[in-house]
Amino acid sequence: MTNLEALFLTSDNMAMDTDLYQLTMAAAYFENGIHYPATFELFVRRLPYNRSFLVAAGLEQALHYLLNLRFTEEAITYLRSQPPFQKVSDAFFDYLRKFSFTGSVHAMPEGTVFFPEEPILRITAPMIEAQIVETYLLTAVNYQTLVATKAARVVHAAQGRAVVDFGTRRAHGPQAGVLAARASFIGGCVGTSNVLAGYKLGIPIVGTAAHSFTMTFDTEMESFEKYHKVFPNHTILLIDTYDTIEGAKKATQIGSKLRGVRLDSGDLVSLSRQVRQILDKAGLTEVKIVASGDLNEYKIAALLSQGAPIDIFGVGTELVTSRDDPALAGVYKLVEQEKDGIVSLKLKLSSEKTTYPGKKQVYRRIDEHGNYLEDIICPITARKNQQGGKRALIIKVVENGELCYDLPNMKGIQAWTIQNLSHLPDNYKWIENADHYPVHKSSELEALRVSFTPL
Amino acid sequence: MTNLEALFLTSDNMAMDTDLYQLTMAAAYFENGIHYPATFELFVRRLPYNRSFLVAAGLEQALHYLLNLRFTEEAITYLRSQPPFQKVSDAFFDYLRKFSFTGSVHAMPEGTVFFPEEPILRITAPMIEAQIVETYLLTAVNYQTLVATKAARVVHAAQGRAVVDFGTRRAHGPQAGVLAARASFIGGCVGTSNVLAGYKLGIPIVGTAAHSFTMTFDTEMESFEKYHKVFPNHTILLIDTYDTIEGAKKATQIGSKLRGVRLDSGDLVSLSRQVRQILDKAGLTEVKIVASGDLNEYKIAALLSQGAPIDIFGVGTELVTSRDDPALAGVYKLVEQEKDGIVSLKLKLSSEKTTYPGKKQVYRRIDEHGNYLEDIICPITARKNQQGGKRALIIKVVENGELCYDLPNMKGIQAWTIQNLSHLPDNYKWIENADHYPVHKSSELEALRVSFTPL
Repeated sequence: MTNLEALFLTSDNMAMDTDLYQLTMAAAYFENGIHYPATFELFVRRLPYNRSFLVAAGLEQALHYLLNLRFTEEAITYLRSQPPFQKVSDAFFDYLRKFSFTGSVHAMPEGTVFFPEEPILRITAPMIEAQIVETYLLTAVNYQTLVATKAARVVHAAQGRAVVDFGTRRAHGPQAGVLAARASFIGGCVGTSNVLAGYKLGIPIVGTAAHSFTMTFDTEMESFEKYHKVFPNHTILLIDTYDTIEGAKKATQIGSKLRGVRLDSGDLVSLSRQVRQILDKAGLTEVKIVASGDLNEYKIAALLSQGAPIDIFGVGTELVTSRDDPALAGVYKLVEQEKDGIVSLKLKLSSEKTTYPGKKQVYRRIDEHGNYLEDIICPITARKNQQGGKRALIIKVVENGELCYDLPNMKGIQAWTIQNLSHLPDNYKWIENADHYPVHKSSELEALRVSFTPL
Repeated sequence: MTNLEALFLTSDNMAMDTDLYQLTMAAAYFENGIHYPATFELFVRRLPYNRSFLVAAGLEQALHYLLNLRFTEEAITYLRSQPPFQKVSDAFFDYLRKFSFTGSVHAMPEGTVFFPEEPILRITAPMIEAQIVETYLLTAVNYQTLVATKAARVVHAAQGRAVVDFGTRRAHGPQAGVLAARASFIGGCVGTSNVLAGYKLGIPIVGTAAHSFTMTFDTEMESFEKYHKVFPNHTILLIDTYDTIEGAKKATQIGSKLRGVRLDSGDLVSLSRQVRQILDKAGLTEVKIVASGDLNEYKIAALLSQGAPIDIFGVGTELVTSRDDPALAGVYKLVEQEKDGIVSLKLKLSSEKTTYPGKKQVYRRIDEHGNYLEDIICPITARKNQQGGKRALIIKVVENGELCYDLPNMKGIQAWTIQNLSHLPDNYKWIENADHYPVHKSSELEALRVSFTPL
């Protein structure tokens, strides 16, 4: 049989899921004897469309990578065979053979609300180690942060009603579906349809039935009865396969053990009202109405403003692809190197892509109720200036290649998001035209940048 | 140490990367004794924004899934513990324990140019098997098809200049990066920066250096020399860290072994012209100019129309997220069931989401030069009507759970895309306002639909 390539990641091959230039630069550093420590920071350049805050996510997957990263003999054999590496010494491949990440990592915990230009991950390690991890760290953090942020917006628009992730089929490949389920839960969704996310992470899993199920039976009523027989306490019926109103009437015949009905097409305002009436008249006031079908934060806000009596929103494509802005501008930039005991700060000056030099901390100024007032980005050397009412957002999570951080479970991460968002004043959370949350650079940081003259 | 969850897929857990309703429906079918064969077809409802054709991709990953799908004991234990499954019989879990895909698969080969409503994958299998695979098949096919299509547009806009995928860091998670590299190559890119794609698939890998490399050395010139020493025959220098024009002048000092320079910021028309002049004056007429930085098909077309002398385009975010339309509307619909020897055709009538019943074939009418004239979607029973100048696009790839298809290698798939696109007339390939390629339903298919009365 022909070999079928699934393109799955494993702990053995994830080191190869990187840009070639990370490995050519690694070879160039190695051959030029550059092993002194460097620090890189990961931050987001700008907010995606209409977003007014970001929710940090993906740290756990980033840490898994850093702590398990290695190059197999087979991978090394492949690299040696590639034309650019023909003149690279055996010693470099020996180095790769023994490679592991020995550095330190500082980060904002997952679920932290943050803003552009604020570092959410900081790596300090020998230059090659710190460089080589760039691509994977970005892909781990960019996507989950994008989805956690989108989820927080959708959940906000739902005003207390439940939101569940239904998006796996439209996610960018099989792994993206389960990563999206995780990030959606971090952003405040109550569950996901993705079974693997439930299995691996303990996230509540939710499901109804598909149109194909209804169509399999001779009548819609038969399909409802046959489903209910198997799931007597967990029946949510999809009622729009033929005619939603007729479907709702049939659903009432299931009686008081019916848990919910789902609408997946049509005018959801009008249909949800009519269906609610049908259910209520039958005494089924506890039966929930689930709505799905290309929903997003804008459509949910519109449905609720028109009084649609929907209890649960199933959100798919728009959530897992962050459809209105599907890429997060996360970048990973060199900010400091230490050679022979001398620290040199680094920044990039070319055109629009300048950066701030040196290791940084982010302080959040809060009022007496814990509400957020403003953030200040400082050099870490300025941390002594911390006063009451300021909280440092970045903590140490890995030291000398060892985890020194108790990873929270999923409920803990979600609780942290919810707590963070509850302290972010409402005017910064509007889904459109929100106010711009104030983020300042400290005078020390501005002074550092101004004084810096590139060579 | 705390357990870090990487959320990797494996052949053992991919069965769980599905929507819960696939498994609840499976249980409901099982408990109701429904095991007769069913046929589902996967097709795309409508073209993404500005797209005028689609390029099929992802079949190999879909087939890996179908042929290796299984439920482990641990997965079954998890499912049994979930509240909805409390009343489901032991026999169902025994069934899952022995589950494998035993059905047939028909598909368009990867690289085939196709259009909305044309089935690109058809599954015929016992009902539960055919249903349970929906979510994963969609996530495997939707994403790669989206990216292969985007890549074909970008490559078309580049008018013969090389396009390479640089997008891993902005892809939707670590697996999406390598899937995007694969799909980009199918769509016509000459290579990728993703090393794992090179390692696993033999796709050419390409790379330059990052700004951090330049910044590591005391001078830009030193960084150029140190890199060139290690890669004497493969030096492509990033010249925009400080000042692009000064960077270009320094790059010429490397001499005739320099392979290329990369511009990643600024006005690429003006800069590429100035850099070309600097290179040419130094006698480096063979040195290539690589451009990158949020490029897409529209920007590349604009750069070339303004005469920018760019030889190679590195395309990242826009390609791997299909940024202007990041979701493909691929769906998987029940079209036929066979019970007690009687075939019943299935279709959905609710609101805007109607479907056509029965197993279908797509015929492409071609002229004497092989150029595409129109497509006709027919019931497969109408295949005897095939005349000269028509080609059937869908072939059998799996029979009774066994692969019966020689999988092409990556170069073979790319060659098929290129051949397909070369026969698609130009007016259907414009990146904006392209003509609408004619796709007809045969009179037999229309008659089937009209005659169909839902129960």
